[in-house]
Amino acid sequence: MILTVTLNAALDVTYQVPALIPHASHRVTEVAERPGGKGLNVARVLAALGHETTVTGFAGGPTGDVVRELLAPLPVRDALVPIAGTTRRTLAVVDAATGDTTQLNEPGPEVTPAEWAAFLGRYEELLPGTGAVALCGSLPPGVHVGAYAELIRRARTAGVPVLLDTSGEPLRRGVAARPELIKPNAEELARLTGAREPLLASHDARRRGARAVVASLGPDGLLAVTPDGVWRAAPPRPVAGNPTGAGDSAVAGLLSGLVMDLPWPERLVRAVALSAATVLAPAAGEFAAEAYRRLCAEVTVEETPAAA
Amino acid sequence: MILTVTLNAALDVTYQVPALIPHASHRVTEVAERPGGKGLNVARVLAALGHETTVTGFAGGPTGDVVRELLAPLPVRDALVPIAGTTRRTLAVVDAATGDTTQLNEPGPEVTPAEWAAFLGRYEELLPGTGAVALCGSLPPGVHVGAYAELIRRARTAGVPVLLDTSGEPLRRGVAARPELIKPNAEELARLTGAREPLLASHDARRRGARAVVASLGPDGLLAVTPDGVWRAAPPRPVAGNPTGAGDSAVAGLLSGLVMDLPWPERLVRAVALSAATVLAPAAGEFAAEAYRRLCAEVTVEETPAAA
Repeated sequence: MILTVTLNAALDVTYQVPALIPHASHRVTEVAERPGGKGLNVARVLAALGHETTVTGFAGGPTGDVVRELLAPLPVRDALVPIAGTTRRTLAVVDAATGDTTQLNEPGPEVTPAEWAAFLGRYEELLPGTGAVALCGSLPPGVHVGAYAELIRRARTAGVPVLLDTSGEPLRRGVAARPELIKPNAEELARLTGAREPLLASHDARRRGARAVVASLGPDGLLAVTPDGVWRAAPPRPVAGNPTGAGDSAVAGLLSGLVMDLPWPERLVRAVALSAATVLAPAAGEFAAEAYRRLCAEVTVEETPAAA
Repeated sequence: MILTVTLNAALDVTYQVPALIPHASHRVTEVAERPGGKGLNVARVLAALGHETTVTGFAGGPTGDVVRELLAPLPVRDALVPIAGTTRRTLAVVDAATGDTTQLNEPGPEVTPAEWAAFLGRYEELLPGTGAVALCGSLPPGVHVGAYAELIRRARTAGVPVLLDTSGEPLRRGVAARPELIKPNAEELARLTGAREPLLASHDARRRGARAVVASLGPDGLLAVTPDGVWRAAPPRPVAGNPTGAGDSAVAGLLSGLVMDLPWPERLVRAVALSAATVLAPAAGEFAAEAYRRLCAEVTVEETPAAA
């Protein structure tokens, strides 16, 4: 079983409008809702790949109820912990003509110390049956900034590898707790290390505690700096579409390869192909299954000298 | 008892952002929710004025539950009819620096014929104890365009006067069913009658069936064309603030004066003062009680020759 943790889960709401004009009034032509937050996105892709997947984190209030209702029909086990606060909404306003998106993210509910303790209890119960853990996204108000570091230490004690996908101070503290893998983008990596060059910065992040670093370089694909070598993986050609969720699909590909103990180049092919197939899918955060299969044969992986 | 009907009730959500920039990502700094839709706004003001007030219309789904929870502590009787669909949200995104608002309105749930029939049953039950009815706002999908006309005819049969506050075809059909009073703005009045001059257009609307017409002229106040005479009422000076809900407060003032059988000039004073006190209140849709009392002494009312 793969466990994904989404401490700041969300109800993703998408509005279609003809065009967003500040200070005007708009009639929304279409409303869509789905469970959101990086860990829930990762879980959905893992389940579609056939992995037994469990989600945990927090859910509360009317929006939390909607998230759980929308999760129920998916092949994902819901182990979210109830809270008194209300799960946030994240709103994407899509201009129908251009496809351009304006994002409005609510901050999330205040989590109490008792709720955090209840979550740690649930997490400890789940770890023994878990092949890998993904810790994903931002922390809600009330959760201490070293939360991911604490979760990594507990997983290490249980012998479970952790993929950490977050940013800022929670990433910095998490890296020091020695996760198996981090998946920053170039910007997050530069903020963590002070180095703007991704290869240099990835080596630096390894020295800070990450066993492996997979940096996402946007349309240029992935750079993996690992104990086994350094690789660059890229799609065969640029893909145009909606990049929402592409990073989460890459995380799912890396986790899938990790629990199957695939060699690094195969893990990277999976991650890049899923990511590109997500950009190509018409619905945000879904992946185009046919495109994924085709891209798996087309992604290029090059080994590069490890020295930096 | 005063009855307000909100067929397309809403959960009003307000987001504070530093500035809304199309196609950028925004962290929402503050989220507020309140029951919305014109009839619910009118009811809240009527209750604050001390009138026994009942709200009906439709509510459903998780947002409908939130609307009802937020109504529960208010001194308003909830006679909303449950539906299978989900009550819409209306989102106001406020630029914190300037106070400018961008509005995004969901279309509302599909109402089935059985749900409309259930509503008519509830409406008929409520009419006998009702001193006046306000029919407010847009129609949700599935409700026939002559719905307000039907509700006006049923109220007339029960001897209950109706204030109609809507626009477009539902207004046109509603006027033909001879309501006691309509409260269009200049734009709605021009669309109804084809006449751009408010006095001419108001006379025309009376010929079409409205017993009285109170046209809202924005910062210039109200124009009332009634069987008893023609008046113009205006605030003593321009008021600056958030105009959200100002029209609904004017409706509440007119209803309050109607059930108390006040002379027209006093009804108009009440409506203009409440409207201005709503613009002055810090929270959208609330009215500043102190300002209301002060403005009641300051609103000017002038009788004008009835001929047009």
